[in-house]
Amino acid sequence: MSSLLLKNVLHEGRKTCILIADGRFKDLNAPQDCPADRVYEADGLAILPAMYNTHTHAAMTLLRGYADDMALNKWLQEYIWPYEDKLTAEDIRRGSEIAIREMLAGGTVFFSDMYFEIEGTMKEVEKYGMRAAIGITMLDGHSLSQQEHKLDTLKHWKDPSGGLLTLTIDPHAIYTAGPETFRKCARLCKETGYMLHTHLSETREEVENCIKAHGTTPVRYLNELGVLGPHVIAAHCVHVDKEEWKILADNGVTVSHCPASNMKLGSGRFPYELAIESGCRITIGTDGASSNNNLDLRESVKLATLLAKVNGDPELLPAELALRWATRNGAEAFGIDAGEVKEGMLADAILLRMSPERMQPCHNLVSNFIYSADSSCIKVTICNGKIVYESDFSMIFAGN
Amino acid sequence: MSSLLLKNVLHEGRKTCILIADGRFKDLNAPQDCPADRVYEADGLAILPAMYNTHTHAAMTLLRGYADDMALNKWLQEYIWPYEDKLTAEDIRRGSEIAIREMLAGGTVFFSDMYFEIEGTMKEVEKYGMRAAIGITMLDGHSLSQQEHKLDTLKHWKDPSGGLLTLTIDPHAIYTAGPETFRKCARLCKETGYMLHTHLSETREEVENCIKAHGTTPVRYLNELGVLGPHVIAAHCVHVDKEEWKILADNGVTVSHCPASNMKLGSGRFPYELAIESGCRITIGTDGASSNNNLDLRESVKLATLLAKVNGDPELLPAELALRWATRNGAEAFGIDAGEVKEGMLADAILLRMSPERMQPCHNLVSNFIYSADSSCIKVTICNGKIVYESDFSMIFAGN
Repeated sequence: MSSLLLKNVLHEGRKTCILIADGRFKDLNAPQDCPADRVYEADGLAILPAMYNTHTHAAMTLLRGYADDMALNKWLQEYIWPYEDKLTAEDIRRGSEIAIREMLAGGTVFFSDMYFEIEGTMKEVEKYGMRAAIGITMLDGHSLSQQEHKLDTLKHWKDPSGGLLTLTIDPHAIYTAGPETFRKCARLCKETGYMLHTHLSETREEVENCIKAHGTTPVRYLNELGVLGPHVIAAHCVHVDKEEWKILADNGVTVSHCPASNMKLGSGRFPYELAIESGCRITIGTDGASSNNNLDLRESVKLATLLAKVNGDPELLPAELALRWATRNGAEAFGIDAGEVKEGMLADAILLRMSPERMQPCHNLVSNFIYSADSSCIKVTICNGKIVYESDFSMIFAGN
Repeated sequence: MSSLLLKNVLHEGRKTCILIADGRFKDLNAPQDCPADRVYEADGLAILPAMYNTHTHAAMTLLRGYADDMALNKWLQEYIWPYEDKLTAEDIRRGSEIAIREMLAGGTVFFSDMYFEIEGTMKEVEKYGMRAAIGITMLDGHSLSQQEHKLDTLKHWKDPSGGLLTLTIDPHAIYTAGPETFRKCARLCKETGYMLHTHLSETREEVENCIKAHGTTPVRYLNELGVLGPHVIAAHCVHVDKEEWKILADNGVTVSHCPASNMKLGSGRFPYELAIESGCRITIGTDGASSNNNLDLRESVKLATLLAKVNGDPELLPAELALRWATRNGAEAFGIDAGEVKEGMLADAILLRMSPERMQPCHNLVSNFIYSADSSCIKVTICNGKIVYESDFSMIFAGN
């Protein structure tokens, strides 16, 4: 593999040269004339870790803005599902490509995906050189032969990307996959080492229906099924009580918090106080573009920090912690040795323009990135030691 | 004045040519070869109205990221006020320039400002060709001679910009300006025709203290003082009950809703249901960069739509209505004959790139702008018929 020297980049408040080799941060204080296969002049740019989007449905970029501002059932039944029924494998490949490009331009180098017809999505991930965990979605509505076909995919699959790509096993949710499906998926995770990715406790209705059907709440229900463990990534977890947070934490479950989606669909405010107190590993997801409507993880991080504070506690979820949810926590959950700009770690990073007015002045880089930046500030995205995205941005003011 | 032809621009779903002359939209269906002083090739760009930021403290860009994630009193007393004490007139000019450039790059062509040492701010507004209403801040803490000096400014001031600039009279808030100051300001507004701009019912504490001091709530208190009327712009209005909303609406008061600030400082959720039901004119503000931390009005509009919905009503505050708050409502409040792309109206507009992935596909332009765009999508900002900002943005993906 090749080496990359980031020359004169701002790191923790001072200019330095950073050498990346074999996909990892090799030297954060390399000499100016350090030999490298590629030298990138990063004067005026600051480095931060890249981000990890732990819950999305990439191909749903195709439905961006197709149905907004409506009640959940109408939205799903009259708009989303009929539209999705018509999608071909080629549509899904194209929708995934839009998502991948959008994510890279927003500083995201990994996504955990749950959708269908995954071959095209995987091809695009490989093409663009990003990381992903692509879910094999399991629904009881699917026929037995479809399910068997999916599980075959899983058993015969080999990563063609050299470690950037993996699969997950995705029983969709407790209201679309029964106890047998969940148990089967959990068994398969143990056999294969893949993660189990599901929606959990997203809406009040889900909780109420679970109590009616199973006599208990969703987290307790999955715990009783023996499904929970460090291999589980649970998206949403909006309606989770204190004892349930302890169950999630004790089992080492990772939660993907999706603030934009929870707000836009009216699902409710994530219980930040309980979640943080529990010690559970929390990460951030954008969810699909039909309920967000972008895949901009930085925007979702800002949303999380603000929604945490709104009820009266401005100290809750400071920017540093929220960025950690979107960086190191996301990487760690999926066993990726990345998420920090640190010698020895895999080199996933972004280089930020310091010149746009929204980045000025710079009292605090993390604060400026989380609270003030947008994608116009992202000059470069680096994944696995390689520059996978680069932008040019210039502004002209008539009055200047 | 000069004329401008926007050639092949997308407007309401179809390509057209738009002629702007004498600062106004002259013809939304002009011929391709329509003569104009300047022809702008807008192929691949879509037009929307520009935005009006009805509450900010522009120069506070200087404090961006200086103090985050802390309780209000600590924030103000240990960080913001000591920092502000050291600001010179030149600092404020420079901070205002950063703000003006940031706002233009984000598609905002007007701001209603409340700060000090306003001469530098006004100079920058004029230089960049944007609109503003610059407040003369009145605090009881200021000496009588300072107050008299400020009022002199007001009486002798003449707009040097040809209609882009105006003043407002800004008693800071009911907890920093007493009843006499408010009455004096209201009288001056009647004499001069200027608007009165104040903070109102921002925090629960303000309401409680008002009840203690004056035996009633802030809106009722100002109503009893005879201060309310169509010349009043009241920022925040987070803690306002149903009857108070009726008082605001009946008096023709304009409210500036500042979602980012209210969330970040933990002030509380704006009562969207009551505000909308009351028929009161609602507009959007970013507030200052120390409590947001950017001046991106589109982001604030998205925040408003999401915060409206989070508690369970995804139909509340649809994108179209929220955009109207940030466009026509803001302009109308300040007597600016703009805020829509419509023949005869003042030509304030933005041209949006349709090519970035976050704008694709385009089922609904307003939805894409409010829910998915960011400033990287803004190619051009037009104020009063002139191009005041233009950007170039290009993306390269290694995998493509």
